[in-house]
Amino acid sequence: MYDVSAIRAQFPILSREVNGKPLTYLDSGASAQKPQVVIDAITRAYSEEYSNVHRGLHFLSNLATDKYESVRGIVKTFLNAPHEDDIIFTSGTTEAINLIAYSWAMPRLKAGDEIVLSILEHHANIVPWHFLRERMGIVIKWVDCAPDGSLDAQAVIDAMGPKTKLVAVTHMSNVTGTRVDVKTICSAAREKGIATMIDGSQGAVHGPVDVQDIGCDFYPITGHKLYGPSGSGAIYVHPDRQAEMRPFMGGGDMIDTVTRETVCYNKPPMKFEAGTPGIVQTIGMGVALDWLMDIGMENIAQHEAEIARYASAKLQSLNWLQVQGTAPDKGAIFSFTMAGAHAHDLSTVLDKRGVAVRAGSHCAMPLMEHLGVTATCRASFAMYNTKEDVDTLVSALELCHDLFA
Amino acid sequence: MYDVSAIRAQFPILSREVNGKPLTYLDSGASAQKPQVVIDAITRAYSEEYSNVHRGLHFLSNLATDKYESVRGIVKTFLNAPHEDDIIFTSGTTEAINLIAYSWAMPRLKAGDEIVLSILEHHANIVPWHFLRERMGIVIKWVDCAPDGSLDAQAVIDAMGPKTKLVAVTHMSNVTGTRVDVKTICSAAREKGIATMIDGSQGAVHGPVDVQDIGCDFYPITGHKLYGPSGSGAIYVHPDRQAEMRPFMGGGDMIDTVTRETVCYNKPPMKFEAGTPGIVQTIGMGVALDWLMDIGMENIAQHEAEIARYASAKLQSLNWLQVQGTAPDKGAIFSFTMAGAHAHDLSTVLDKRGVAVRAGSHCAMPLMEHLGVTATCRASFAMYNTKEDVDTLVSALELCHDLFA
Repeated sequence: MYDVSAIRAQFPILSREVNGKPLTYLDSGASAQKPQVVIDAITRAYSEEYSNVHRGLHFLSNLATDKYESVRGIVKTFLNAPHEDDIIFTSGTTEAINLIAYSWAMPRLKAGDEIVLSILEHHANIVPWHFLRERMGIVIKWVDCAPDGSLDAQAVIDAMGPKTKLVAVTHMSNVTGTRVDVKTICSAAREKGIATMIDGSQGAVHGPVDVQDIGCDFYPITGHKLYGPSGSGAIYVHPDRQAEMRPFMGGGDMIDTVTRETVCYNKPPMKFEAGTPGIVQTIGMGVALDWLMDIGMENIAQHEAEIARYASAKLQSLNWLQVQGTAPDKGAIFSFTMAGAHAHDLSTVLDKRGVAVRAGSHCAMPLMEHLGVTATCRASFAMYNTKEDVDTLVSALELCHDLFA
Repeated sequence: MYDVSAIRAQFPILSREVNGKPLTYLDSGASAQKPQVVIDAITRAYSEEYSNVHRGLHFLSNLATDKYESVRGIVKTFLNAPHEDDIIFTSGTTEAINLIAYSWAMPRLKAGDEIVLSILEHHANIVPWHFLRERMGIVIKWVDCAPDGSLDAQAVIDAMGPKTKLVAVTHMSNVTGTRVDVKTICSAAREKGIATMIDGSQGAVHGPVDVQDIGCDFYPITGHKLYGPSGSGAIYVHPDRQAEMRPFMGGGDMIDTVTRETVCYNKPPMKFEAGTPGIVQTIGMGVALDWLMDIGMENIAQHEAEIARYASAKLQSLNWLQVQGTAPDKGAIFSFTMAGAHAHDLSTVLDKRGVAVRAGSHCAMPLMEHLGVTATCRASFAMYNTKEDVDTLVSALELCHDLFA
């Protein structure tokens, strides 16, 4: 039995007020709040167990190293990756996709080679490929979504041509909540010998992920959206792709030997992890993932599906509100506009009622253009949100309608 | 009056025991411990004030953004940079130097161009330049140190030739504690039109830094060595160099507009900061730097100089101990070896006495080779260390001598 009150009680920030009203936090798509167990792990790490990792032999260094390295196994389990060594730590999805672009794509692709993206992508999964377009003449091929925000897997497969080297699509849109049938896409790509990168920034937060079942080559996740610390993240990399990658950043840990004239690199995954890492953030991410798995990602998915159904019905009943994206099975992320009111004004009024939503282009300008809007308000629900949160949002939106209509 | 007891009392970890002995933490060169004020700031950020930054308009997002962005001014003051916009946030020095390599050097240098490094450099200031050697045919020119570990500024100046495009040297060696006369080096380089990168990983920790007085182009610092959180850092970049840099990582925040065919970048410094940043780490680094400036970097330098003099005398009186680096005015970092005992064995015995030191090559293999050692033990002192810590180290070393001699 999913006890949302008990879960809410574990997030200290959710009991605070904002502008004299109880906080209704509907901005978890941008970054999620942190349960006490994660905050406590960070405090303990710095107060009692802190040291640099890997390079020491003293008690605290061994302790910190054990805690830090154990997170590789936690991420492996969370994503059902075959091996711990398939997991590379990063500071988040943005660094992860840049790592893929610099380490795997840049030395392998040549002018005229194609990368297939969907129009749903976040800038983190667009701009690194624009770099390759600008610098190397790589061609980006776009696949549009349907008017309801859904993405036809067959359309992505049809876009794969003889020059396609990579398909990079999101598991779940951060704007419309669209879920993408990534398994079908990856299976077709593998048959054609095309690598696949599935952006798990949102997808991994809202339900179970099995990278072996999906069959992708790269699957990055970002800790701060997974109820973990800012500046944490990891990426699953298929061993065949890992073997093709050259180092991204140079420094400590990622080398075996360095002389004046030569450098020999460490074995993967450390070959791709340079310098003192985000020690405490990574430890905190591990605690967050363990905590999520204890609750059960299936249970979280079920809870959020209920919220999504409830919110869909409520928001679509407001005939003065335009909801962007109504694909079946969409996640609990709702972008909307209201004629006569700018998204920023909406968000400001909602904020006065304690309702935190995001307004803008949500780092997805090509999708905004495709949807024919310049900005939307976005309410993104999480494991700790309730139907009452939906009601609070709707009532605040009704106030906006009174004010602006 | 520098009250080291009062300062120690602010670091919770320093009152813990290790292996049944009070912790004597002499591994701050690898990473420093954190004062309560920093730990509290992290807890507060996650418990009461957390949100993603920059892209929201709601109360928590504005609050987090204000706290995060205010750190730019704190770093500006700490380094005496001319403008806040000269400060780019990073996850630490390793990312910073890779940023310089990828954003500034890679698009500007060509095969045969030279980068001058000193033999004192940390791998973080070697491997990114090896990448350019491997990938682009850049030539690395090395400047040796004297037998006492000191680096002759004139030797660095003499190494600058017509093909030299960058001089990248440390402000203070992490192995020998050698301070480098970076002002003389930067002044000569500027006259010759050569860019300068001063690795501030250690230098900024142990005394005041004035990047305008030094006259360098790049000066990275790393938060976790400055008593701040892991995964935090910043870099001062001269505006002329900043104007020459192309983006490093692509994603959110660093763009102005993105379409299917084009991308326009944000203004610096955000042009170089992609994705959701290390929000809480950066806020924590700001608290650490403010706290350090309240105590006064001059006062810290004076305290550490006393420790360095005391430790130098004590360690050099042990005629069975070989101290690597005895340059005048060196910082309180001591690397040493003992005939008949491997550095790892020494560190293991010291650990049994509660003394945390590092053993190995300290991410400085070319220096190790130059010094004729494969590994050393390193005791690195910090603002919270005392003469009693030196005595504890010496007494534990005497035990090692009894065991291994």
